[in-house]
Amino acid sequence: MSISADGYVAGPDQSSTDPLGVGGPALHEWHLGPAKDHPVNRQVVSDMMAGMGATIMGRNMFGPIRGEWGDSDWRGWWGEEPPYHCPVFVLTHHARDPIEMQGGTTFYFVTDGIESAYARARTVAGGRDISIAGGAACARQAIRAGLVDEIDLQVNPLILGSGERLFDGFEAGKPRLELARVLEAPGVVHLRYRVIAAGD
Amino acid sequence: MSISADGYVAGPDQSSTDPLGVGGPALHEWHLGPAKDHPVNRQVVSDMMAGMGATIMGRNMFGPIRGEWGDSDWRGWWGEEPPYHCPVFVLTHHARDPIEMQGGTTFYFVTDGIESAYARARTVAGGRDISIAGGAACARQAIRAGLVDEIDLQVNPLILGSGERLFDGFEAGKPRLELARVLEAPGVVHLRYRVIAAGD
Repeated sequence: MSISADGYVAGPDQSSTDPLGVGGPALHEWHLGPAKDHPVNRQVVSDMMAGMGATIMGRNMFGPIRGEWGDSDWRGWWGEEPPYHCPVFVLTHHARDPIEMQGGTTFYFVTDGIESAYARARTVAGGRDISIAGGAACARQAIRAGLVDEIDLQVNPLILGSGERLFDGFEAGKPRLELARVLEAPGVVHLRYRVIAAGD
Repeated sequence: MSISADGYVAGPDQSSTDPLGVGGPALHEWHLGPAKDHPVNRQVVSDMMAGMGATIMGRNMFGPIRGEWGDSDWRGWWGEEPPYHCPVFVLTHHARDPIEMQGGTTFYFVTDGIESAYARARTVAGGRDISIAGGAACARQAIRAGLVDEIDLQVNPLILGSGERLFDGFEAGKPRLELARVLEAPGVVHLRYRVIAAGD
């Protein structure tokens, strides 16, 4: 997850026109702006994508619609060929038929929680990595549920001041982490924490 | 400043027996525990100490006493030879005579705010660095007042969950930062942010 120096993974006032919140897009310059061509940034993205067998995301990451889906034709923020190229399990309280996109991405809507989404992701991932794409609430749930082995953060030299913090409401020492990898590119540090224990 | 993965520079419940708060001491393993002998950690400490012409700290970093000093004989947490070896300006609402320690450290008590402490520090520092030692409130004041050129963080793979966050209550983009240096040692990442602009 791309994160600010002050710990935010999204800015305040998220909306359909500002899905990452005010100031949020700047967190993604490292892989969407000119810096995406830096060899370290390219490697980080390509390692993540190559290893990914399934993805889990929160509903607010999938789209701006709240409540019932109704007859919405929303198909995600990413156009007809999303960058996931694997099954994506979207956590929601409202059932919806799967949506098959181009390039191998299919969105499945899971109404019975993160553990269930994870079980389904494991079934299809065939031993490959399962990525928790975000947002913050979804990532926190996954960490608390003990489903996360590694936390990859792209730390940006930005102060967002408010929004959604990834590490919020955790208890001391839960999870227990160790520093597994540090990579640097201009304007971003890639930190990988390994989760040694989720809780007690 | 030593900081946790979730952004805390001190744990909760600071007291005279827990001056860094519950869990806080673990943030300082990199320079107090066995890891202090790692060449990167040694270099970071020695660069900081060698360049330091004066230090500014908040009163709670100096000691656990609140309110009037009375006839307190408190001389800091650090024994007779504190590790600063330079003048240290302690922000407080309560005047007190300077305290000269061994090894070049003298504690001066400043009652008229961070700008005044900074002006006095500049006078004695003779062009050398002025370190804002902490705690979080003192560092935030200094950043907001535009007195900080560089923010050196030692990021530890620890979740403290509560306590004092360094980056709290800032507005988006204030300060504006750039990533100036990344150094790694086992279990700690040394990040240096350069402050490009404090405010608008």
